[in-house]
Amino acid sequence: MSVTFNGKYLAPFINAHEYDALQPQVTALHKVLREGTGLGSDFRGWIELPEKYDREEFARIKAAAQKIKKDTQVFIVIGIGGSYLGSRAVIELMHSPFYNSLKKDTPDIYFVGNNINSGYLNEVLALCEGKDVSVNIISKSGTTTEPSIAFRVFRALLEKKYGKDGSKGRIYVTTDKAKGTLKKLATEEGYETFVVPDDIGGRYSVLSAVGLLPIAASGVDIDELMAGAKAAQDDLASDDIAKNDSYKYAVARNILARRGRDIEILVSYEPAFAMMNEWWKQLFGESEGKDNKGLYPASAIFSTDLHSLGQFIQQGSRTMFETVVHFGQAKTSLTIDKLDEDIDGLNFLAGKTLDYVNDRAFEGTVLAHTDGNVPNVVLEVPKIDAHEIGYLIYFFWNACAMSGYLVGINPFDQPGVESYKKNMFALLGKPGYESEKAVLEARLGR
Amino acid sequence: MSVTFNGKYLAPFINAHEYDALQPQVTALHKVLREGTGLGSDFRGWIELPEKYDREEFARIKAAAQKIKKDTQVFIVIGIGGSYLGSRAVIELMHSPFYNSLKKDTPDIYFVGNNINSGYLNEVLALCEGKDVSVNIISKSGTTTEPSIAFRVFRALLEKKYGKDGSKGRIYVTTDKAKGTLKKLATEEGYETFVVPDDIGGRYSVLSAVGLLPIAASGVDIDELMAGAKAAQDDLASDDIAKNDSYKYAVARNILARRGRDIEILVSYEPAFAMMNEWWKQLFGESEGKDNKGLYPASAIFSTDLHSLGQFIQQGSRTMFETVVHFGQAKTSLTIDKLDEDIDGLNFLAGKTLDYVNDRAFEGTVLAHTDGNVPNVVLEVPKIDAHEIGYLIYFFWNACAMSGYLVGINPFDQPGVESYKKNMFALLGKPGYESEKAVLEARLGR
Repeated sequence: MSVTFNGKYLAPFINAHEYDALQPQVTALHKVLREGTGLGSDFRGWIELPEKYDREEFARIKAAAQKIKKDTQVFIVIGIGGSYLGSRAVIELMHSPFYNSLKKDTPDIYFVGNNINSGYLNEVLALCEGKDVSVNIISKSGTTTEPSIAFRVFRALLEKKYGKDGSKGRIYVTTDKAKGTLKKLATEEGYETFVVPDDIGGRYSVLSAVGLLPIAASGVDIDELMAGAKAAQDDLASDDIAKNDSYKYAVARNILARRGRDIEILVSYEPAFAMMNEWWKQLFGESEGKDNKGLYPASAIFSTDLHSLGQFIQQGSRTMFETVVHFGQAKTSLTIDKLDEDIDGLNFLAGKTLDYVNDRAFEGTVLAHTDGNVPNVVLEVPKIDAHEIGYLIYFFWNACAMSGYLVGINPFDQPGVESYKKNMFALLGKPGYESEKAVLEARLGR
Repeated sequence: MSVTFNGKYLAPFINAHEYDALQPQVTALHKVLREGTGLGSDFRGWIELPEKYDREEFARIKAAAQKIKKDTQVFIVIGIGGSYLGSRAVIELMHSPFYNSLKKDTPDIYFVGNNINSGYLNEVLALCEGKDVSVNIISKSGTTTEPSIAFRVFRALLEKKYGKDGSKGRIYVTTDKAKGTLKKLATEEGYETFVVPDDIGGRYSVLSAVGLLPIAASGVDIDELMAGAKAAQDDLASDDIAKNDSYKYAVARNILARRGRDIEILVSYEPAFAMMNEWWKQLFGESEGKDNKGLYPASAIFSTDLHSLGQFIQQGSRTMFETVVHFGQAKTSLTIDKLDEDIDGLNFLAGKTLDYVNDRAFEGTVLAHTDGNVPNVVLEVPKIDAHEIGYLIYFFWNACAMSGYLVGINPFDQPGVESYKKNMFALLGKPGYESEKAVLEARLGR
């Protein structure tokens, strides 16, 4: 297995029989998940996606990515939530958080439509000046507020720059396969379309066209990404906790939650993992956080945050546990030189790579936090490449589905997301919301 | 007052008498704080900093920033924790998270020495190629691992590029005023030095030379920043909760913590606030998180994270409350156009600015989350400029000190940060740690 559950540091916190005690639940819920008899069973398309994905569309994604690399300097990806986090996370982890600034033979990629902020949009517009631009709008319905506003702005930019005809080859629409306003528009205008699958929710969609087109446009090998996910699909099909490390992770976090740990901090020692942290927070938070249940998903990048959150984790309220995604191998290496005069006292590190030091920081921290009464789950990932990341994504999906069923919620819906939208529409005077508007304005004291 | 505490939405959660009930504690602790009779009293230099800061050094900071703007294309800021977060936070909020990519007449600014990662450092080195570079190393002791490693790398780069003499005018050292290895080096080599004050801890240091030099180099008006902080110093000197909104905020979060809310989520609707969130997390987390106490500091940017964490906040475990930093006015504006065909159903927004919509999202969300049983503190900030940000920083400092004393801890130390370092040094074979090394390696199974 590529990604493995390292439970060594959990020994002071979880007895071996506690895993065993949950095996019957896992066995029953595995059946429920695989047979589709549980809550949210319409959204299990991710389970066999790495095997059964649409090869024709996959080839079109690769062709579109090739075209974009050739004719585009700035690629604008419009989406929010699951239509945003996954692709950005993979691109930053595989390349760099400095991806846009570094020299490369692929386009700059900016993500918009994930907020409602004039400054942000104006700045991305400025970054497009004098550049060749293409756009990927990602929205199942085509009516979500944030991406729709951004698409109005960037479609107008393209049509001004290239004309209505010229912009057709620069707009890629990822949306419902048959219905909805974006599908209709794309058909009328002749935009190339890709599919947001019916049976895969947003937070599980990164390995569908939703995530794959931007990821491929950045130059990541999406064949390897899918191959890694397929390896995980094969490895993680057992109901036996001893043979399925994604379930072992689900069980460990369930045990810790039942012990009163309310917060799970996902930790990495790789700065490029920061957006993967955000992707994971949506996956687990949105899946588990309902019916007043669920672990609050938090995150940190070490050693950076050992100098900010580190004090709290070492000695603050004992409300959390940590899950460390530990990469066995760094992407590049840089060796520490010896100084003639050892002014900073670091000559004992001369000849070592930064990543050797980073790995001792990892070990030292796991032991220190364990001593501080913070349970540490460690997920071992051999290295940072497309195959391993595809594997890790599937590992988290599978763990998340099992976690959700163990908690006793529907891991595949998100009914709470509508609450703020309803209020916002009413306050904005959207037709049909008139009666709510008056009530809300009274509460706001207007 | 610039920043005000809006407790309107807390009414369902906190009774008026609960604030009153804490007034005697606040009065006593205000006296303790101001008279320096409490825990950590050596670190209260921030209280009068906006009034008493060193004008001679301040003028040198401005002169250095002018020189950097003229002779530097890439400004490398080396620091970790409090020597990193504050300046990056102010720069991104005042300019943009896209600061480095946008056209400007100030240098690109990269922050290094805040992790131990070869890839990260190699990438910043690549970004320096062919550019004129200056460096600001910020470290009180001069021996902290992360910044020391980075300084070795960038000092070598400068000396290779400009020679030993030529690099002297490009290295700015912010360190102890008299002692330590960096001060000694700077004196020997003739580097310009600035002071990390003795009586101000790292997380309170953004308005000392630690933060001010990078902030000034980015073109922010640091006179305005200090004037805003001075206004806060004047406004927030009372012990009366009714007259001191920073204490009212401290009291509200204390009440909510005693009710079993374990997590505070700092929220902004401004994407450029993301690093201010990180700065705040260090300030409150590192101050309060000791003796197994403290609120876990988390953060979110809305509406972005309403599509990821939003579900959890609306309906998940009721373990948290939110503190929303609400700006009354956006930095720039962009108006939504009317489409001939209303394909996305958003024509009812035509003629409105994005920020008008954003503000209705704020109102709608506060009401929705309140209905979801999540208390919402709102801090009202009139607009995003240097004056208001200086004020906000002081507001949070003052609230944090009072919060810490209310919790019954020392808000100014961070003893837990050493634990991982000791382990790391032992595992790295640092002279003097030999006996610990064997013990740790045995625990690691080596």
